[in-house]
Amino acid sequence: MSNYCVGVDIGGTTVKCGLFTVKGELIDKWEVVTRKEDGGKNILPDVAEALKAKLSEHQVANDDVAGIGLGVPGPVEPDGYVSVCVNLGWKDIYPAKDMEALMDGITCKTGNDANVAALGEMWVGGGIGHNSIVAITLGTGVGGGIIVDGKIVAGAHGLGGEVGHMHVRDDEHEFCNCGGQGCVEQAASATGILREAKRNLAKTDEPSSMRDFGEELTCRDVCDCAKAGDKVALETLNTCVSYLAKGLALVTYVVDPEVFVIGGGVSKAGQFLIDLIAGYFAEYTPLAKKKPDIVLATLGNDAGIYGCARLVLD
Amino acid sequence: MSNYCVGVDIGGTTVKCGLFTVKGELIDKWEVVTRKEDGGKNILPDVAEALKAKLSEHQVANDDVAGIGLGVPGPVEPDGYVSVCVNLGWKDIYPAKDMEALMDGITCKTGNDANVAALGEMWVGGGIGHNSIVAITLGTGVGGGIIVDGKIVAGAHGLGGEVGHMHVRDDEHEFCNCGGQGCVEQAASATGILREAKRNLAKTDEPSSMRDFGEELTCRDVCDCAKAGDKVALETLNTCVSYLAKGLALVTYVVDPEVFVIGGGVSKAGQFLIDLIAGYFAEYTPLAKKKPDIVLATLGNDAGIYGCARLVLD
Repeated sequence: MSNYCVGVDIGGTTVKCGLFTVKGELIDKWEVVTRKEDGGKNILPDVAEALKAKLSEHQVANDDVAGIGLGVPGPVEPDGYVSVCVNLGWKDIYPAKDMEALMDGITCKTGNDANVAALGEMWVGGGIGHNSIVAITLGTGVGGGIIVDGKIVAGAHGLGGEVGHMHVRDDEHEFCNCGGQGCVEQAASATGILREAKRNLAKTDEPSSMRDFGEELTCRDVCDCAKAGDKVALETLNTCVSYLAKGLALVTYVVDPEVFVIGGGVSKAGQFLIDLIAGYFAEYTPLAKKKPDIVLATLGNDAGIYGCARLVLD
Repeated sequence: MSNYCVGVDIGGTTVKCGLFTVKGELIDKWEVVTRKEDGGKNILPDVAEALKAKLSEHQVANDDVAGIGLGVPGPVEPDGYVSVCVNLGWKDIYPAKDMEALMDGITCKTGNDANVAALGEMWVGGGIGHNSIVAITLGTGVGGGIIVDGKIVAGAHGLGGEVGHMHVRDDEHEFCNCGGQGCVEQAASATGILREAKRNLAKTDEPSSMRDFGEELTCRDVCDCAKAGDKVALETLNTCVSYLAKGLALVTYVVDPEVFVIGGGVSKAGQFLIDLIAGYFAEYTPLAKKKPDIVLATLGNDAGIYGCARLVLD
């Protein structure tokens, strides 16, 4: 029985790494710059070099490491194959196999970054104590990760948990990055909330403290103004959150999780946001006599490294 | 290693039973009348009595039976508890435990009927060869069953696979049985398709062969007229199928199955219906580079007994 595990969350700018006990205690974390040039061929060797130094520093022997989990910002096939990962420059690669070779045979596993973040929140974050959770990240986009009976639902074609692209809004005529219209992401991402606020400000003469920010207005300002009772900001947030809640209701009628864990930059609005979501969610789920909990994520940007580490413990 | 398994699909009128080999070959099937009076207390004893006679007739010893699977028309908690099953008169019951006692200790398991039907279609029906499928039953209502990695996704509160109650239609102002509005079931059940046809006939003077059926018009007639090129019938079916396909697209962005298996009375419209669904589905899933297959169910009303039997083989 090994005592340690390692999480490696590979992003387009930096690779976040963490050394954990198998109980989920973070021993050390560090970052490595993501060198994307030359098809990203240096990324894994760079990570391996830094990791070897860290294991040595903490006097952790290779055979005391249960495994290394790799989180990748893109689709991963069930056998660990990554056909393309635009953000890293990767093509046609089995990252776990390559990493195993670099790390003298330590077992490695690969997962999609949004899915492993959900696993992290289940392990020691907002979803602790549950084994069926849906984690939603409200950031620049809207990501999702679905865990059923403790396992990631990656999907047959890598689309499991793509809840950001569920269609929920018929009156949205702009196109989403996915090619669709009216996606959850267009309504409830930081970008989407800000756009909705600007639309609402443009169509009314109503005074609003959001106007004081001029062109510098951010999603965070919209949330702050809404909390302070600003009418236009509140209307904006209610619209956006109602579409998000509609999406969560749809998810409930598919996998019916024990809990929804809400993270990402927008979730910094805190319990105020959760209460808004829960209100609309209840309206959209008349069939659900017992409602799932809706809670805040607690691991922030570290959810990825926690989840990657947890990935190797099954 | 036992050679046989038994499926018991308990409906409000009859209990369908099947004796199978563990490879999925149906040896015999029979029915027992569902006696719902007295809180349904006779149902399981009646089933047990008939089953003992069948096992004896086929000279199958108890220890050669891997188990008995029970399908129940209502929510089943993860530990097999059924708090209420209106259609059977049951309250506060663990059907599998009671059945084990009646069958001298043969292992029993309980599942929701729509979910086990999906398992049956995966085992030897339309979803054979796959282990992640979503089965949709288009009947009086719209039922769903979700299988991920070979296991039923029953959900934390029994709502897994309730895809019939996903909201997909904003311009539906009638209420669904679930209390919601604009559910998949309202659009794409036999009842829903018929209602849509009547609405369309009422709002146009356009000639339509559907008018020849008068008050006797059925969903099957609507499908037949559409196949024959009737304009109003085609418009009706296109509307209904587009909402169904929207629902399937939403499901894809949650669990991303390998295949959708379409069954129930409406599916008798055959490949014509499947092609219509696939067309709209492609429109609603721009993110899915590889689309899941959409196929017809093949087990008909026997899907339940197959799935119940399969339930005990894990």
